Amino acid sequence: MTDTPPTQPRTVVYTQRVEFGDCDPARIVWFTNFFRWIDAASRHFFIQCGVPPWHETEKASGLIGTPLVDTHARFVKTASYGDTLQIHSHVAEWRDKSFVQRYRIQRENADRSVDLIMECDEVRIFAARREDGKGIRAIAIPPEIKALCS
Amino acid sequence: MTDTPPTQPRTVVYTQRVEFGDCDPARIVWFTNFFRWIDAASRHFFIQCGVPPWHETEKASGLIGTPLVDTHARFVKTASYGDTLQIHSHVAEWRDKSFVQRYRIQRENADRSVDLIMECDEVRIFAARREDGKGIRAIAIPPEIKALCS
Amino acid sequence: MTDTPPTQPRTVVYTQRVEFGDCDPARIVWFTNFFRWIDAASRHFFIQCGVPPWHETEKASGLIGTPLVDTHARFVKTASYGDTLQIHSHVAEWRDKSFVQRYRIQRENADRSVDLIMECDEVRIFAARREDGKGIRAIAIPPEIKALCS
Amino acid sequence: MTDTPPTQPRTVVYTQRVEFGDCDPARIVWFTNFFRWIDAASRHFFIQCGVPPWHETEKASGLIGTPLVDTHARFVKTASYGDTLQIHSHVAEWRDKSFVQRYRIQRENADRSVDLIMECDEVRIFAARREDGKGIRAIAIPPEIKALCS
Repeated sequence: MTDTPPTQPRTVVYTQRVEFGDCDPARIVWFTNFFRWIDAASRHFFIQCGVPPWHETEKASGLIGTPLVDTHARFVKTASYGDTLQIHSHVAEWRDKSFVQRYRIQRENADRSVDLIMECDEVRIFAARREDGKGIRAIAIPPEIKALCS
Repeated sequence: MTDTPPTQPRTVVYTQRVEFGDCDPARIVWFTNFFRWIDAASRHFFIQCGVPPWHETEKASGLIGTPLVDTHARFVKTASYGDTLQIHSHVAEWRDKSFVQRYRIQRENADRSVDLIMECDEVRIFAARREDGKGIRAIAIPPEIKALCS
Repeated sequence: MTDTPPTQPRTVVYTQRVEFGDCDPARIVWFTNFFRWIDAASRHFFIQCGVPPWHETEKASGLIGTPLVDTHARFVKTASYGDTLQIHSHVAEWRDKSFVQRYRIQRENADRSVDLIMECDEVRIFAARREDGKGIRAIAIPPEIKALCS
Repeated sequence: MTDTPPTQPRTVVYTQRVEFGDCDPARIVWFTNFFRWIDAASRHFFIQCGVPPWHETEKASGLIGTPLVDTHARFVKTASYGDTLQIHSHVAEWRDKSFVQRYRIQRENADRSVDLIMECDEVRIFAARREDGKGIRAIAIPPEIKALCS
């Protein structure tokens, strides 16, 4: 829209089949499974951006993962088994010690129409183990990871 | 205890052990399990308030449960296996076709101190199956349920 | 390839990524997740063979799925997040009201070597709801399904 | 086998509520959840017998848990949400580097009758991390643990 076009944040799509066991007696996806898939999509996002898996970063720099601090999800349409979902994710905001990862879960139907199933904004941190071995602590966002994922 | 006492909303406590398999390679509860437990605490809240189980209400009035529309959670401290958690829940707000259910997950430690682990606000609806058999729809809040749960 | 070739049972392969949240504090797949995936592979097997999804068969013939009667699994090697697993499944035996579905979960490594992760034999039935609405009952194996899946 | 009566193995009971989200579209417990609960009952058995939690034994002796080698389960009756299940477990056999843990999952009904829901025999090992950091290995059964649990 302007002379200097806004940079589009890097977006990664994660595909997830919905299985029978993901659904509850109301025959729709039991919502906790959306969070399972979003968590996988979050990790997948970093892998696709070129960040090594956490068990490697733990050895190299102590980084063990990106635990959640805050999550806000809005459920728009139901999904059921037989559906295939696309989870679009990108980093919407980088802060000092945290970042906002944003997700849209969509379903492309047989007639090519697309349904929005769920939206979610997560605040995550980069974490290392605490020195006393009890729990975890936030570390500054590694600049090389920020560069890979923007 | 005053002339016009504030009405305290009815609160129910649901107790949950944390198991080995609830924890991830960071040795803390994998966050999706908090949502499993909150969903159980939600149903438990209604049962404790005297609402029949959903398979009975489905026959009587078509009500199949209280699916989530929106959830917002804040993760404060980590928990791990061996912990026992108390999930306090109440209805913080009644709307026309939805309500806000609020949760505090706490851990009482060996020294009697209490840690806040997680807070969550959910917007839920009362749902029935759609007549065409596809998906679900919101119904007005049954007044007898509201009376039992306030 | 001979005059009287042995009939190979139809085999379907289901691919599954292992995610961080599928692993436990020992950093290996928490075994219950193998059963999640096997259950999905079982359903996927029938879909790939051309059997309609259970919500369609329920309307047509009352068939709601293939619940487990007996399962026997042997865990050979561990898997962890970052792995991609192939679940090979076929029907090893057809009985009157039940059948044996057999699974091999394998991991193809970067050097093209293949590890056997887990083997499982399940006895499943074809089930319909009981007339009194309480629980389920076994039905005779539908011959058209047997034909599709052999 | 002798004049002195056989010693009854130590048995521990673990109680588990069945929740809505534990059930599938057939409205019965999705079987993978039985394995979640059996795994919890296994750990609970050792805790009740006086064995320290695995994160303590890991520091003391390297023992990180009792992973499964083999499991054989038989599903007898279905269960659904609202049920409370009792999981009875004991060690049925001690071998050199493994042991057989046996489970009976029962439901006591409102009329005091008891239904057998599921039986399971597991072969488990005592495990430590491998020195190269890749995966786990079996260790000899610690005699003090055997003494506590027999």
